[in-house]
Amino acid sequence: MNLLAKTRAAITDVNQGAAAATQRLLDAKTKPRRSLGRLEDIACQLAAIQGIPNPPMPTKAVVVMAADHGVAEEGVSAFPPEVTWQMLLNFAGGGAAINVLARHADARMVVVDMGVNGPAEAVPGVMSCRIALGTRNFTKEPAMTLAQATEALERGIAIVDELAASRVDLIAIGEMGIGNTTAATALVAALTGLPVEKLVGRGTGIDDVTLQRKIAVIKRALALHSPIDKSPEEILARLGGFEIAGLAGVVLGSAARGIPVVLDGFIAGAAALVAARLQPLAAKYVIASHESVEIGHKVVLEALGTRPLFKLDMRLGEGSGAALALPLIDAAVRILHEMATFDSAGVSDSGK
Amino acid sequence: MNLLAKTRAAITDVNQGAAAATQRLLDAKTKPRRSLGRLEDIACQLAAIQGIPNPPMPTKAVVVMAADHGVAEEGVSAFPPEVTWQMLLNFAGGGAAINVLARHADARMVVVDMGVNGPAEAVPGVMSCRIALGTRNFTKEPAMTLAQATEALERGIAIVDELAASRVDLIAIGEMGIGNTTAATALVAALTGLPVEKLVGRGTGIDDVTLQRKIAVIKRALALHSPIDKSPEEILARLGGFEIAGLAGVVLGSAARGIPVVLDGFIAGAAALVAARLQPLAAKYVIASHESVEIGHKVVLEALGTRPLFKLDMRLGEGSGAALALPLIDAAVRILHEMATFDSAGVSDSGK
Repeated sequence: MNLLAKTRAAITDVNQGAAAATQRLLDAKTKPRRSLGRLEDIACQLAAIQGIPNPPMPTKAVVVMAADHGVAEEGVSAFPPEVTWQMLLNFAGGGAAINVLARHADARMVVVDMGVNGPAEAVPGVMSCRIALGTRNFTKEPAMTLAQATEALERGIAIVDELAASRVDLIAIGEMGIGNTTAATALVAALTGLPVEKLVGRGTGIDDVTLQRKIAVIKRALALHSPIDKSPEEILARLGGFEIAGLAGVVLGSAARGIPVVLDGFIAGAAALVAARLQPLAAKYVIASHESVEIGHKVVLEALGTRPLFKLDMRLGEGSGAALALPLIDAAVRILHEMATFDSAGVSDSGK
Repeated sequence: MNLLAKTRAAITDVNQGAAAATQRLLDAKTKPRRSLGRLEDIACQLAAIQGIPNPPMPTKAVVVMAADHGVAEEGVSAFPPEVTWQMLLNFAGGGAAINVLARHADARMVVVDMGVNGPAEAVPGVMSCRIALGTRNFTKEPAMTLAQATEALERGIAIVDELAASRVDLIAIGEMGIGNTTAATALVAALTGLPVEKLVGRGTGIDDVTLQRKIAVIKRALALHSPIDKSPEEILARLGGFEIAGLAGVVLGSAARGIPVVLDGFIAGAAALVAARLQPLAAKYVIASHESVEIGHKVVLEALGTRPLFKLDMRLGEGSGAALALPLIDAAVRILHEMATFDSAGVSDSGK
């Protein structure tokens, strides 16, 4: 059994008993029952995932995976493909939005080159897991081979193993890759059977003409690879990206190890959807941070059975929304640890 | 001219030129234009309020005001009135939700007794600004005199003066007072002319019978004090609370000093609405944190012309939602300070 199969088999259901015990702890705190709303839900979900009623303050990492996309040559982005490599250097240099937001959230940054078309030399601060120098153009052939898809998934799983070994117990995921909303849209269309028009957005900010081209490109790809009633691995290989596959692996690895995964936007969501198709229980380990401007994101979150914490009209990716959610998640844990109870504070309870 | 009149006169419009300059700074950062959505709006609003394009990292305070309400004797809350005093002690002791969330946000807590029915002795950690031992029952007479309303407003203004002197430049507001959603609902109904049913909620969690009683109580009060086409001060005096008046003063004082005010839930919003009726420009200085479960909150935010940052099904008050928004606001400023530009990072821009 390979690492992917082992990981899928190792994922079990979350512990609802621990969540119920957490709710009882919260109900004893000096506040009307359930008055902290979704903050209480988050505390309970963390408990359910980790199997303990009073989870510790999380040690956090943001995993940002980057890769290039063959389909970018179809002119589906507002930015040229070399921006993927340039932004990878920016991540390594600490100047991107996600660097700022990860520092703000006191989270370690893990920058992974899953397949960027750049020089061969190692870049300090970048973990090289290059499967290839970008995927192939999926309007003409599968984006990657099945073996490459499996390799990318397993790279993601292995990264979680390393993070878990250094005691990281909360992982936020993000991505970068010019052309990757096109790949994610095609992937989600194939996985859900929904029409492209219900899923496609403007990515980094394309104009109307480019949007029409993007729709046509995705439809051509779906036609080429139809029928799409294939295994999730096969759909991932045909229409995905290396960073999407890698992040799907991160979700699976996290679920197998009982680590909550905070999703970012549409592309990270698409990766989680791939993971959930490979092992439905994996969906219980994800926390949706924001709902992005990309219309497909809402669809993906619904398919995962989760709700976003906020909607701030963001559409950057990189893990920016996920990193912004981390202080809220920390707050939920601190409430559990630090609030007084009705008894300890001598406050009269309403009894309900 | 008294302090209130001076403060109202001192409030000027915000500086849209500074906001535009901030947007230009953000547009040079390595991200698609406007892709950080409302985080960019917040940075621009802070700039407009402070009149500088690159505002500093904020020094934060959470001002929590507590008071008792004569109308509580009508049985409109799930908790007995003595809980206001008990919770004031809990704030002073550091065990309430807002203590945890203020620590988490690195904000100073300022706990103010605006009129709690408790012992006369000073409580360490509580600023005493008691106007009286609670308001009068406004189903029978005005909640307070006009002089008391002015005194409470001016107490709030004076607290901002003290905070500004110790270099606080971002203020979050919250409240505690058994019965105060009843007062806030009556106040907002009178200020907006909207029917009670569109504004009333379950507060700390009352059952259906109590909710019907609460509606009847508010209608009785509105009938007693009608016609309600009175000055905002008069409406505040008849139907408000000391903590609501004090917080309205905090909003006015902050606006006069160019300090952004982060609102919490329905009651803090009602206080901001009072401030905005006393000086419409004050509304430009508020940042709405969350939208609470109380249905009247949405109405209040619309009347203020602002939108919440998130909706987490919270209904606790105390400033809990406002404190949760502080890390998001800090993040907006850090983006402005710390992100690389397209030029500095050598990243190709899309030019749009």
